[in-house]
Amino acid sequence: MKEKRTDLALEVRESFPRNHVEVKGVVLEKHYCPEGKAQITTVQIKDDAGSKAMKKPKGTYITIESELMLQEEEDREPLLLCICGQLEKIIKDLKQKSVLIVGLGNREVTSDSLGPKMTEHLFITRHLEKELGETFMEKNEFGCVSAISPGVMAQTGIETEELLESIVKKTKPDLVIAVDALAARSVKRLCKTIQITDTGIAPGAGVGNRRKELNKKSLGVPVVAIGVPTVVDAETIIGDHLEHVLEKQGYSEQEIEQFICEILTSDTENVMVTPKNIDASVNRISRDLADVLNHCFQKKG
Amino acid sequence: MKEKRTDLALEVRESFPRNHVEVKGVVLEKHYCPEGKAQITTVQIKDDAGSKAMKKPKGTYITIESELMLQEEEDREPLLLCICGQLEKIIKDLKQKSVLIVGLGNREVTSDSLGPKMTEHLFITRHLEKELGETFMEKNEFGCVSAISPGVMAQTGIETEELLESIVKKTKPDLVIAVDALAARSVKRLCKTIQITDTGIAPGAGVGNRRKELNKKSLGVPVVAIGVPTVVDAETIIGDHLEHVLEKQGYSEQEIEQFICEILTSDTENVMVTPKNIDASVNRISRDLADVLNHCFQKKG
Amino acid sequence: MKEKRTDLALEVRESFPRNHVEVKGVVLEKHYCPEGKAQITTVQIKDDAGSKAMKKPKGTYITIESELMLQEEEDREPLLLCICGQLEKIIKDLKQKSVLIVGLGNREVTSDSLGPKMTEHLFITRHLEKELGETFMEKNEFGCVSAISPGVMAQTGIETEELLESIVKKTKPDLVIAVDALAARSVKRLCKTIQITDTGIAPGAGVGNRRKELNKKSLGVPVVAIGVPTVVDAETIIGDHLEHVLEKQGYSEQEIEQFICEILTSDTENVMVTPKNIDASVNRISRDLADVLNHCFQKKG
Amino acid sequence: MKEKRTDLALEVRESFPRNHVEVKGVVLEKHYCPEGKAQITTVQIKDDAGSKAMKKPKGTYITIESELMLQEEEDREPLLLCICGQLEKIIKDLKQKSVLIVGLGNREVTSDSLGPKMTEHLFITRHLEKELGETFMEKNEFGCVSAISPGVMAQTGIETEELLESIVKKTKPDLVIAVDALAARSVKRLCKTIQITDTGIAPGAGVGNRRKELNKKSLGVPVVAIGVPTVVDAETIIGDHLEHVLEKQGYSEQEIEQFICEILTSDTENVMVTPKNIDASVNRISRDLADVLNHCFQKKG
Repeated sequence: MKEKRTDLALEVRESFPRNHVEVKGVVLEKHYCPEGKAQITTVQIKDDAGSKAMKKPKGTYITIESELMLQEEEDREPLLLCICGQLEKIIKDLKQKSVLIVGLGNREVTSDSLGPKMTEHLFITRHLEKELGETFMEKNEFGCVSAISPGVMAQTGIETEELLESIVKKTKPDLVIAVDALAARSVKRLCKTIQITDTGIAPGAGVGNRRKELNKKSLGVPVVAIGVPTVVDAETIIGDHLEHVLEKQGYSEQEIEQFICEILTSDTENVMVTPKNIDASVNRISRDLADVLNHCFQKKG
Repeated sequence: MKEKRTDLALEVRESFPRNHVEVKGVVLEKHYCPEGKAQITTVQIKDDAGSKAMKKPKGTYITIESELMLQEEEDREPLLLCICGQLEKIIKDLKQKSVLIVGLGNREVTSDSLGPKMTEHLFITRHLEKELGETFMEKNEFGCVSAISPGVMAQTGIETEELLESIVKKTKPDLVIAVDALAARSVKRLCKTIQITDTGIAPGAGVGNRRKELNKKSLGVPVVAIGVPTVVDAETIIGDHLEHVLEKQGYSEQEIEQFICEILTSDTENVMVTPKNIDASVNRISRDLADVLNHCFQKKG
Repeated sequence: MKEKRTDLALEVRESFPRNHVEVKGVVLEKHYCPEGKAQITTVQIKDDAGSKAMKKPKGTYITIESELMLQEEEDREPLLLCICGQLEKIIKDLKQKSVLIVGLGNREVTSDSLGPKMTEHLFITRHLEKELGETFMEKNEFGCVSAISPGVMAQTGIETEELLESIVKKTKPDLVIAVDALAARSVKRLCKTIQITDTGIAPGAGVGNRRKELNKKSLGVPVVAIGVPTVVDAETIIGDHLEHVLEKQGYSEQEIEQFICEILTSDTENVMVTPKNIDASVNRISRDLADVLNHCFQKKG
Repeated sequence: MKEKRTDLALEVRESFPRNHVEVKGVVLEKHYCPEGKAQITTVQIKDDAGSKAMKKPKGTYITIESELMLQEEEDREPLLLCICGQLEKIIKDLKQKSVLIVGLGNREVTSDSLGPKMTEHLFITRHLEKELGETFMEKNEFGCVSAISPGVMAQTGIETEELLESIVKKTKPDLVIAVDALAARSVKRLCKTIQITDTGIAPGAGVGNRRKELNKKSLGVPVVAIGVPTVVDAETIIGDHLEHVLEKQGYSEQEIEQFICEILTSDTENVMVTPKNIDASVNRISRDLADVLNHCFQKKG
């Protein structure tokens, strides 16, 4: 079967047939944020069997889904606090860490500009320590935050992994947090879902151009990835709908696959499906994620 | 049958079944630009029967299709001259006219920002006549060009037709040229096709939000529309692919319609299909169209 | 004396020599906003003598000065409420009015883009009345707000006054509120001062390119102008400093004028003085002014 | 004497009193580009004495001044070729080198965004070598070009020098070319002057926030800097004009200095002088410099 493109572990898990009540090595839990305004699904890939089945590295994948992401500013606040909470769960002693926040993606492509736009709103402090001293930092309860938007390989000619490896080696953060736009399989998740994972990320996956993985192995420090789906592959959306209809008609999986292969041309490769309000959504979410990270690192409890 | 969304007269014509060799009242001609680098299709809707069949007003619709639109600047030049030529064909005595160029669409939405971005690159001269005199204008062979990007109704609270009617009444141009992003049915036409028509335009059609028509009747002067398709409706692309498969399987038109109706949910209404490089394409094409219009109006033959 | 460029009535009043305790026909009052965080100066030009002395039309000019304009979002809130209060003072029964809000200026020139950027954040309602009915409007306590950013004459070829006159005639608002970037004389007022006046405005004054006045006489409805100084003329800042030094040395006004005339070349005409953080300031203030206007018109008391 | 802020070696040289016919260790040559449309001044700082007098590192500083920089695209072409020629003079065997092009500055501050905007228009090739092979590169006569816009320290929390040192160590270019906006002393040079130097650069100097130097010593490879002045310090322009007047009146250097110190307040520190059309100029020049660099590296002779 032609692979369904999704960066969401939750959607990979959902793609198993209904009667697969359990996927070996994969644990799934659902709960709701206080006030029930956001659904939180935790997928844990426990072992190699689970990793192989899910085609994703071992680790924890938290998905937060909420219609609140589209609401007015005041209404989004409880959601943002819920995201903070999930980040604190996935990163032990978050507030004690020095962090390099990376805005992945291409700022010249609206649907891929989430990461770079997010970094514009960060409160950066790493240089203040040198300039104003440690006492100043402690008095103001500032964490040590640095950030970079390295651009994509077509803009730099350099693998993001190469760039970040050298920067991490030089600036020695305890932790990298990488923020990126993702590809989903379902349009109803676009711009309403956040995935947080401790497994790192392969930048460019969201735009069909997967690059070398950013993770503890490649960068030398833990890499937490925060992703928001902004696009669905046109081929995925067409294929899913066709599959749905043909299954109902009783075609076999193999026959369905053949139909879909025949019908998808090179034209559909170069197009993507995005929300009609993608420009406004990316602006709003990039600001929200920066607010979440500023809150996590700058106000010690 | 659920209507297939397209703003291109050419695609409406193509949607008639193959054995309809002729649609009454509709004349179609194809030819190639010098050097064969662009295909030009002229659809003429001659009478009310043709208008009813095509669901479009009577008039001439010229479609220019060329892969050159994606090429480097030097390579696009012959195409731009070809577009100039078609404009001169559709507007008699073009160079003698005073013109109001209107950039339709929403500059805050990338796929809809073609019109407003185009106006940024126009060479505006109407005010120079007052300031520098008619002799200056003649000596420099300047036409009389004014322009406006009125924004969309959600930004202004005012129908574009109301705005333009009042501006035309006040400033009295001989002609309005309206530039807008369109919706196509086929992804392979996106950002590679230009439609020029003397029938005016309904702004917002390209984003599924059709407003009052801008035409000679509503504005009082001839309205030439230049449109470039930048989006395909997600529902259209899914429906077209399903139809294709189900037809092959021998289903009736009615059965196919029912399948498609069942499968399209409210989720697919709020998303659109665009080229992956939509940001760069809109920037390039808006500049090209401004160059075409500057060339048409500023260098008298 | 070469005229000192300022759009602030307050600065014109200040420019009279110290011993002019009173300028005939001009009344000046100062007070502080609750909590003392903003200084409010009201200049009233009462009669023709005052108008001639001040070289400004008769009417009320309210200037709000506050360092809060540069602060974090939470801290600016009392200031924004104070601006709302001053607007309500200058416009009787504000909440009952239908209003056309005009964003003056050139969005392509950072220091002049305040008006157009402000309109992007407005909550527009005029079209909802037609679509959803009067009951909907009343139930939600929505006023009737329309908006336009007409662009500057170099972009449109049309006088802003011509454009607005025709739009006002067609859409019949009770009131026009025009928002524009201004020129100040003193750098310490840049981006920290708001002038509200019931006398209308001459767009482009802030960039040295004064156009026809927008006021009750030209547009047919009252015109309230809200302006924020973003630039100082380079010639003004040089001249002011020279004057200050030469006065101290005992030179006569005439001698000083001659010195300044000699020293200012055509080079200094084409440059302007702006805050180093002008980009961020214009973004912040345009959003704040939209918030103020949204608050004024959408939540009836 | 309070130091006059300029990043142009030419202006430092000009600041010596007229009777200093010669500054020891500094050689100055002027000539004109073919067709006389650009004036080229080469300042060579030959030894430590010259370096101390000029307060700049030893090396070659080429300044190209031309009104053509403001002209239409076709007219600027000979100037761009002239800049290519000067670059080839300062970098031996330019076309054989692998180069890392760095866009210095803050893309969120118009007057400082020249470097980051330039990188958007570069033709990047370094990654193609890996993907398509050396033969492909040779066949197409592609050089090896990579690029980065690291952002400024307030955005990243990391010294640009730290970032670049680590990237250079990892990616091993033969050469770094750094492009930055500069501060000039004279407004008539703004956006009409290009300085090319083989001595490297201290980023942020142009906005009064000098950071660690980027040069062969710090980065390990030669650093050529290309700078274009976009701002004049407000204090510099005021001081220069005052000095000019007071000199005429016969005041001593010391007295003049005292006057100027007294008159410049903290207000004038936070403002800058830029051309009124700075937005358009930065867009145009950033594209031109990218064109120059693309031409230098992609078409082997």
